Amino acid sequence: VAKRLEKFKTTIFTQMSSLAIKHGAINLGQGFPNFDGPEFVKEAAIQAIKDGKNQYARGYGVPDLSSAIAERFKKDTGLVVDPEKEITVTSGCTEAIAATMLGLINPGDEVILFAPFYDSYEATLSMAGAKIKGITLRPPDFSVPMDELKSAITQDTRAVLINTPHNPTGKMFTREELSTIASLCIENDVLVFTDEVYDKLAFEMDHISMASLPGMYERTVTLNSLGKTFSLTGWKIGWAIAPPHLTWGVRQAHSFLTFATSTPMQWAAAAALRAPESYYVELKRDYMAKKEILVEGLKAVGFKVFPSSGTYFVVVDHTPFGLENDVAFCEYLIKEVGVVAIPTSVFYLNPEDGKNLVRFTFCKDEGTLRGAVDRMKEKL
Amino acid sequence: VAKRLEKFKTTIFTQMSSLAIKHGAINLGQGFPNFDGPEFVKEAAIQAIKDGKNQYARGYGVPDLSSAIAERFKKDTGLVVDPEKEITVTSGCTEAIAATMLGLINPGDEVILFAPFYDSYEATLSMAGAKIKGITLRPPDFSVPMDELKSAITQDTRAVLINTPHNPTGKMFTREELSTIASLCIENDVLVFTDEVYDKLAFEMDHISMASLPGMYERTVTLNSLGKTFSLTGWKIGWAIAPPHLTWGVRQAHSFLTFATSTPMQWAAAAALRAPESYYVELKRDYMAKKEILVEGLKAVGFKVFPSSGTYFVVVDHTPFGLENDVAFCEYLIKEVGVVAIPTSVFYLNPEDGKNLVRFTFCKDEGTLRGAVDRMKEKL
Ligand SMILES: CSCCC(=O)C(=O)O
Ligand SMILES: CSCCC(=O)C(=O)O
Repeated sequence: VAKRLEKFKTTIFTQMSSLAIKHGAINLGQGFPNFDGPEFVKEAAIQAIKDGKNQYARGYGVPDLSSAIAERFKKDTGLVVDPEKEITVTSGCTEAIAATMLGLINPGDEVILFAPFYDSYEATLSMAGAKIKGITLRPPDFSVPMDELKSAITQDTRAVLINTPHNPTGKMFTREELSTIASLCIENDVLVFTDEVYDKLAFEMDHISMASLPGMYERTVTLNSLGKTFSLTGWKIGWAIAPPHLTWGVRQAHSFLTFATSTPMQWAAAAALRAPESYYVELKRDYMAKKEILVEGLKAVGFKVFPSSGTYFVVVDHTPFGLENDVAFCEYLIKEVGVVAIPTSVFYLNPEDGKNLVRFTFCKDEGTLRGAVDRMKEKL
Repeated sequence: VAKRLEKFKTTIFTQMSSLAIKHGAINLGQGFPNFDGPEFVKEAAIQAIKDGKNQYARGYGVPDLSSAIAERFKKDTGLVVDPEKEITVTSGCTEAIAATMLGLINPGDEVILFAPFYDSYEATLSMAGAKIKGITLRPPDFSVPMDELKSAITQDTRAVLINTPHNPTGKMFTREELSTIASLCIENDVLVFTDEVYDKLAFEMDHISMASLPGMYERTVTLNSLGKTFSLTGWKIGWAIAPPHLTWGVRQAHSFLTFATSTPMQWAAAAALRAPESYYVELKRDYMAKKEILVEGLKAVGFKVFPSSGTYFVVVDHTPFGLENDVAFCEYLIKEVGVVAIPTSVFYLNPEDGKNLVRFTFCKDEGTLRGAVDRMKEKL
């Protein structure tokens, strides 16, 4: 393996999902629904395949999907973007992240991450040769320590990476936090990469896109995807929205990472993004019910549950159960209880920071959530 | 844009396909069929979507597809590989190439390419920080100058990249060439990355997989995909086959480039790869007829046509028509004649080497091929 990837292990999601299968455990680990996406989106994919939309798409996206993304972005943020020059369709948000890093970051550039963070950020920054500076969000509300952010920014800082709603904690960046970060970025000529794949799963407050803040669009790459919003995580359609000068870099990297994304799935994604607003309202309502079941259940089991404002994840403190750390707890939970959660230490630059915390997902049907809670009540 | 990608332009395929649309020209440029893939494969995709196979696949591939790839590889090469440890499913062969480079090549490693070569090789090697050494294949048969290869190998040489059948020339590496390259690689402890996406389009001789040569499997990464063999270039299913120690690097890069590939398409790919042998026989017969039409047509138009043993491409010398170079010729061809071809200078490290050559594809229905020939007969 090349040095740039030496320190990385098999992703925790792969590890945990295979353990789930091996032990027949209920999988509240990796974030994929155990229910299917909407019929009208599946129908659109089937129609596209039947209609012969099966050859290479335009590299940066099927025009109809690029337009649908622009329309959706306008509804969400009020911003008008040119689908020809400011949108890149990728093979999932994971590819959009990789293309952003490899397309825009030079070796030696400093990039600031807020820990805990999704593992691919660090790995793709390592591919790009970036110097990573991690700032740890402060529990219990995982707020941004602005003093630390201020002193972390240097003249080599190229970008700050934000993820809101935030995986794994469910934190949503407040308008105040975003505004302060925005001012710092404008002042110091720093870019923002913002991963907003859970934007439609915002429960306790409205989602705010960094790009919508004054002066920010021109320095922001907004990353999003279809999977979470439409319960089709396996379709792997993502995108990056950015002003033309940044899109150029993202597209160049994308051209050589995958060239183009599955054509029939792109047509279906266009149909999905044109869903009526009622779709999003129902989605949120369903997820709030699921969240309630899981959160109340976890409390009843005896966990300290951290508040989660968005995403389909919730983080708990497992220390009442006396295991030495998050990894040991998750192993016990799989083998002795039959439930899979995700240890959070892998999301920290310093694993110690996450040793008390594990993440559960509630993107499962209610029976599964209740079943997992019951197992924990009985055996923990 | 990051420095690693500064020298690259919009891929020639994207440029040419958009010019084709703009000028209403017949597109014999980018290699995508204008006919559809087989019904049974499309049906398998539709069934997978209906069956709810719509969530994240296992990162390195749906188990059923991994097995189908191993079965196919055994039929083709006689080699038995472990689908759990030696196969990585990617989002097209383009991603397999990127993952191989980023997963196995360190900055400063030397990698040898045979020019002309597919553009993503150079770009992904640049991402990996490799030092590229180009060796120009010798027309008219595009043979490997072994003396040059021998003297190009140093102790920093990490890999030789092969593409057979070869895009853009249609050259197929002979057993003798492959054996000599294999000996050199074994002697000097060099890896081989071999792009064999056109392996089922081998017309004049049998395709030989480098991995099947004695002592080579352990040092070879074999790259392939679904698109060309099943006329479904837009589905973007590719894979890398390599011994476990090399697969580890490829998988680590893949994990963070895209994480996983479209689940329903993977199920369909498994069905495709289990096609009866008659499918491949018919495919080849159809393509030989198309090739005959195009090659005879191009000769009648007045081109010097280079022999093409495989792929769905053929390279011609355009100099009889008096344009100054391949790019100028292709521009004239689009605007004045209404046919799109691909200039080959973009595939050379030194563009001068390709200035007399342009590439046409025959992955189009016979009417389209005849139509293009007629336009050229009339207007060139
Ligand atoms: C690509 S799997 C990881 C993304 C996700 O859904 C998770 O955090 O579980
Ligand atoms: C990814 S488009 C390029 C591949 C191909 O089919 C071609 O060489 O035209």
